[in-house]
Formats: sequence, structure tokens, C-alpha cells
Amino acid sequence: MIYATRRATFNAAHRLFRAELSDEENLQIFGKCSNPNWHGHNYILEVVIAGNIDKTTGFLIDLKVLRDIIDENVISKVDHKNLNLETEFLKNKIPTTENIAVGIWQQLVNKIPAGHLYSVKLYETENNYIEYKGEEN
Amino acid sequence: MIYATRRATFNAAHRLFRAELSDEENLQIFGKCSNPNWHGHNYILEVVIAGNIDKTTGFLIDLKVLRDIIDENVISKVDHKNLNLETEFLKNKIPTTENIAVGIWQQLVNKIPAGHLYSVKLYETENNYIEYKGEEN
Amino acid sequence: MIYATRRATFNAAHRLFRAELSDEENLQIFGKCSNPNWHGHNYILEVVIAGNIDKTTGFLIDLKVLRDIIDENVISKVDHKNLNLETEFLKNKIPTTENIAVGIWQQLVNKIPAGHLYSVKLYETENNYIEYKGEEN
Amino acid sequence: MIYATRRATFNAAHRLFRAELSDEENLQIFGKCSNPNWHGHNYILEVVIAGNIDKTTGFLIDLKVLRDIIDENVISKVDHKNLNLETEFLKNKIPTTENIAVGIWQQLVNKIPAGHLYSVKLYETENNYIEYKGEEN
Amino acid sequence: MIYATRRATFNAAHRLFRAELSDEENLQIFGKCSNPNWHGHNYILEVVIAGNIDKTTGFLIDLKVLRDIIDENVISKVDHKNLNLETEFLKNKIPTTENIAVGIWQQLVNKIPAGHLYSVKLYETENNYIEYKGEEN
Amino acid sequence: MIYATRRATFNAAHRLFRAELSDEENLQIFGKCSNPNWHGHNYILEVVIAGNIDKTTGFLIDLKVLRDIIDENVISKVDHKNLNLETEFLKNKIPTTENIAVGIWQQLVNKIPAGHLYSVKLYETENNYIEYKGEEN
Repeated sequence: MIYATRRATFNAAHRLFRAELSDEENLQIFGKCSNPNWHGHNYILEVVIAGNIDKTTGFLIDLKVLRDIIDENVISKVDHKNLNLETEFLKNKIPTTENIAVGIWQQLVNKIPAGHLYSVKLYETENNYIEYKGEEN
Repeated sequence: MIYATRRATFNAAHRLFRAELSDEENLQIFGKCSNPNWHGHNYILEVVIAGNIDKTTGFLIDLKVLRDIIDENVISKVDHKNLNLETEFLKNKIPTTENIAVGIWQQLVNKIPAGHLYSVKLYETENNYIEYKGEEN
Repeated sequence: MIYATRRATFNAAHRLFRAELSDEENLQIFGKCSNPNWHGHNYILEVVIAGNIDKTTGFLIDLKVLRDIIDENVISKVDHKNLNLETEFLKNKIPTTENIAVGIWQQLVNKIPAGHLYSVKLYETENNYIEYKGEEN
Repeated sequence: MIYATRRATFNAAHRLFRAELSDEENLQIFGKCSNPNWHGHNYILEVVIAGNIDKTTGFLIDLKVLRDIIDENVISKVDHKNLNLETEFLKNKIPTTENIAVGIWQQLVNKIPAGHLYSVKLYETENNYIEYKGEEN
Repeated sequence: MIYATRRATFNAAHRLFRAELSDEENLQIFGKCSNPNWHGHNYILEVVIAGNIDKTTGFLIDLKVLRDIIDENVISKVDHKNLNLETEFLKNKIPTTENIAVGIWQQLVNKIPAGHLYSVKLYETENNYIEYKGEEN
Repeated sequence: MIYATRRATFNAAHRLFRAELSDEENLQIFGKCSNPNWHGHNYILEVVIAGNIDKTTGFLIDLKVLRDIIDENVISKVDHKNLNLETEFLKNKIPTTENIAVGIWQQLVNKIPAGHLYSVKLYETENNYIEYKGEEN
């Protein structure tokens, strides 16, 4: 068993809020992240695959193949997008880093051709990041 | 003569476009950065002051004072903001990294209490950054 | 189950030594880290919380709340301090990165309002870091 | 139980290929990494030791001792080397990051004087890294 | 006048040596960098353009255009290559970071469509980098 | 003319204060950096040499030679030291980053065997750094 990580980046706008609350109530819960005019981030994504080394290639998974899977299933849906308005897999979700990470997990979990998805790590800023391993509580 | 740099960060949404053009024309010029639904970045700002060392303190400038000047004159106006809609000093400007850097220069140039503003460096992503030194062409 | 990390930094002085040994004996065990005149570091701290996502906020824990808890319970006690002389929670401990990390764990473990403390990671230099997860041996 | 990490770096050349295949076949499997004229990387290695804190030193393991063990058993065998031609522990292996990481594990696992080897992390580029924990599949 | 920087990376093998000298003589001058079996690096390249902001776009230069120019004129000639054997613009040069940086300058200096080439910065390792600004001595 | 940079690091303790002032007065000027019990930093030093490329080696300066010069003339005098008490070249100086950078310049300026010293850059934290180029005001 070995773990292979591929890093990717994307830039997106978002707003943290619940539609049924007023701007003032959202401000109280989400602070300046609830700005109705949006703000945004350079997100850094790390996708970790666990599995065995293929003896004929020496790879767990060809990381260029993994890169293309991440591009098609995640990056194309979030890069230079408004995560609240344009990202189908976040529809009706508050686009917190937690919810984005879980959404990315669900986009990828059935698309991995070798080994299996082990972890999704998502950095929102240099000080904050979320990791999700598909664990049920 | 010595150079002192203070780093700061902010997160913002923006859109690159010219109001008099159609979405298609803007897409042709600005690519996915012209997304009408916005996108965003974690900007990294470096402000460089040039001047002499004050013999009584050993400082060119107290960097905590510089931090507060940057917070008041720049960060409070751009952090968690929509740069097109909410940042007065970018009004009627396309918020490219170039124009943001020049705008930040203008916010700071007359506010430096020791030495003088030498350079503003602004990173939009890990691959792209702009430096402005107040030079006329 | 998801994992949320908050990064913080502090600068401190310390000395690795045992009071009952001579300077020469301490030098043999701790090398230049036993300098009786102290030396210091920019420490980087990562605090990881594990738990479930709150459906009403989309957060595991509000990371600004976590930041304030870390500031109050850790940073205020170590930043710009002498860890041997001034940090109560390291009293009678050799302030190795290991002991500082365990001490930080103990400061935080009962203060986490959502989820639970999962890990404390402490970087002493760019080449050395310690992780503690509260595991008994 | 605590985890101590030591980082090290090395620069090496390699080629991904299987000797029984043609250059064209290798190109199809390994892409430009199969260039018969070699290419190379700045590898970053992180070695993680797990164990208990020694009460008399406050260390899990003296990281300067660990550095010397890594230098002698790993760095001296890979730094400024051709991993295909010159690194004994990779003989008859395709020097993928996966195989290098497993090879480094085997070089180190019996040489750790305090605690035990927990993980070997190896970064090939800023976007790709492998972790190996000695787990049998 | 403003300065725009685009970062790119490439991985390559090289050997520092002069063909007219013996391996022993080359070892004396170039140390382990003269290994006849090659070694390699992850190079980081920063290309800086100086010029004025185009009022209609707010750009000094479209950094995606600059990226493509760098890819075509530099990266395609050095990435996953042996710099001694395969890079035309380094023919008969010792591929030190200095000579690679000057060679990259010469590849780019006449290809910049807006503003002019100001500087080429090339990192060979995290501890060593070279900057060239086209200055004659 | 080309510029070659070598990076080095050191860890040290210091205190910002003037001996003729009270602790209260020093606190007012220097804030928590005046803690009488010291604090410390991981300093990052970048030394830049300017000069011409030696045709026979392709080097401006052998960076391993430069490393040894920096080690002997700077690092040995500051690493794991108390900069106020133990560093001769800072005697009677307030060890601000500015004064340390100028002191390092003076240690190195006459010791460079090829080209000449162009700049000393000193990072005190990830947010603050000083550059000195030997310019008289």
C-alpha cells in the first residue's frame, strides 16, 4: 500500500450565506465571507490515491492520468467560476471549504482507475485547510 | 539607503471586462477572467519602503506601523470585497493586477511616515505577479 | 468526519538543557541548542480539529473562533517569550519541539467547542517538525 | 506516541523505461519521462519517526542523529547520481517516485535508533508526491 | 513603467564539465556536478517584462500569451531534456545556471510582443538562483 | 553582468532595546520585541553577487565557495547565538533586521573572490524582510 498525491489549483468566487436569512443575520454567522458582492480565493487541491504499485510500470497510478481526471471532473467545474451560481455539485450547499472538499470527493470517488481515492485536501488560504477521507461519522 | 518590505494578504472577487463590449468580445480579450459571475483570488501584497536607518531605533520604519498603514489604506478597501463594485480607488478601472498595483501605490505613496514608498509587488497567483515603482514611462 | 486545520506562527527564545548538568554535559547532549545565552525560532503551528460538518453553517468549526482559541490559550503564552523562563505550561520541561507540541495539545484539548482536537503539528525549522495526536504509548 | 519529521533534499537524474521494450513503447507508457538521454529532479524527502519522548532529553530522536543516518543511508547513494545506473538499491527497478520511496524505506527501516520508521514522503515536483508507510497490501 | 512576471518550471538533466579535461580535472572544478552519468534539477524560471499598461486591456502583456511564448521558445527545448545533449541553444556551453539563464534570455528577447524583456531569473535549487538582465559588462 | 544568489539560514535570539532607557520606555518603542528575557527567529539570508561569467567554468562564482564564505564570516557568528551578547559585529548596535543586514554586508564585502557583493537580503519572519545594497544615503 502506497499513497500518491497530485496537486492542482483553481481560482473561484463564492459567498457564505443561507438564502432564508437576512444579510445582517448572515453577517453575524459568516462575517465578511457573507459579502453579497462575493469575494474569492486561489484554492489549492491535493488529491491522494492509495493502492499498490503496478509491477510493470512502477506506478500506483500515472499521475498525468490522475491530473486529467481531476481537470475533467473538478477543475473544469470550479476554475474561474462562481461556486454558488455555477458549480452544479455545490447546488443548494453553502460553499464552505468543508462542503467544497466533500463535493470534490464525490466527483472523484468513482473515477479513479487504479487504487482508490484516499483523501481530498483543500487549502482556502495559507492559514486554513480541510481534509476529507470519505469517513462516515 | 536600505529597503524594508512588509507582506500582507487579501482575498477578493473581480471580473476583467469593458462595459462597452459584449460578453463575447470580453471573453475574446480576457478569457475566463471575464466570467460575468465573477471569480477571485488570494492576493499577496509586498510593500517596499526605501530610506535610512533611524539611529535611535535601528529601524528604517517600524514595520508594525507600516502594517497598520497598509491595513487602513489598502486591506480594509479590498479584503473580502468585489474589486469592480466596492473598491473606490479602482472605480472605472479594469481590475487587472497591473491596475490594482498602481492603485495600491497611489493609496500609499503619501502616507509613509519614514523613508519613501519604493515598490508595490502584487501576486495574483503563484505564477503571476506585478511590480510597480511609480515610474512614469 | 472531516479535518479542519488552522495555521498560526510565533517567535520565541529557548535553551535545551537540564539544570542538574554542567554546560559541558549539556553541550554534549543538546549541541549548540544548549547555548546558555539562548537562541530562538519562528515556530509554525498547525492545529487540526476532527468532527462533523454542522448542516446549518457548513462548518466543522468556525476557523476564526478556532484562531481566537489558539491565540488566547497558546500564542499569548509563547509569542515573543522565553519558553524556559516565561511559559507556565513548559515549567520544569525541556522545551524541545516534542515537549512544546505536547504542551500545546494540553492547552487546547479541553477548549475546542465543536469536534475534537485531532493533531498538533509544530515546525521548528523548515527541516524539522513534530506531530502529536494525544496518543498514549 | 509522537511523530518527528526530518526533511532532506537531493538532486538526481533518472529515466523511466523497461529495458525489454522499444523507445517507442516506453514513450507510450512513460511519456517524456522515458527520454533515453535522461532528465532529473530536485527531490524533497521527509522521513517520519514514531515513538515516545525520552524523558531525559525531551527528544523522540535527536534530529541531528537522524539527519546523519539519512545522509549515510540515503543521500550519499542518490544525490547527484543517476538513479538508474548508480543507485544499488534501485537496481532492476524502474525509478518511479513510488519505487524510490519504497527503496528509501528499506534503506532506513533497520537503522533507526529510537522509535521506529513511520513514513517516507518523497516529492518529485511541487505537484507530485508519494508517501509509503511500510504497509503490506 | 511596470513589471510583469510569469513563472514556469521544467525538469532536466545536465553535467558540468569541459570536454578537453579528464574526469578527475572536471571533478576538481565542478565537484559532484561533473558526474559523467548526469544528475538533474527541477528548475524554476521567472520571466520579467517591463513596459506600460495598455489602456484598453489594463494589461502590460497578456500573461497567457507570455506563457505560450515561454513554452514555445524555452520550455519545449529544455523540459525533460538533457541540457548538454539536446538543447540547441546551450550547444558548446557548460550548462551552469548562469549559462542557461543567458541562453533563455537570448531565446526570448526578440519574441516579446508588448513591453520588453527585463529580467530572467532561474532557480536551480531552493538555495541557488541566477538573475540576468541583458547587461553588458 | 549577471547576479548569483545563495540562500542560508540561521536561528538566533535577540532583544530590541537601548540600555539607557527603562524597560517601560523600551516597551513603548520596541513593543514585545523588547522582552528582557529575549525572543528569537529563524532568519533567512540571501547573498547576491554581481559580476561576469568566467568563460572557463561558466560560473560567476562557485556557489559552494560562496556558501563556505558565508558560513565562515556570517553563519558561524550568528547561528544559535544571542545577537546582543555574542555577535561581535553587532556590538553596541540594536539588533534590528536593518542593523543585522548592514552588519552582514560589512562582514562579506571584502571577502568575495569573484564579482562583487551586490545585495544582502534578510528575512526575519515570513512577513518582514530587509534588503541592503551598500548604498550611502
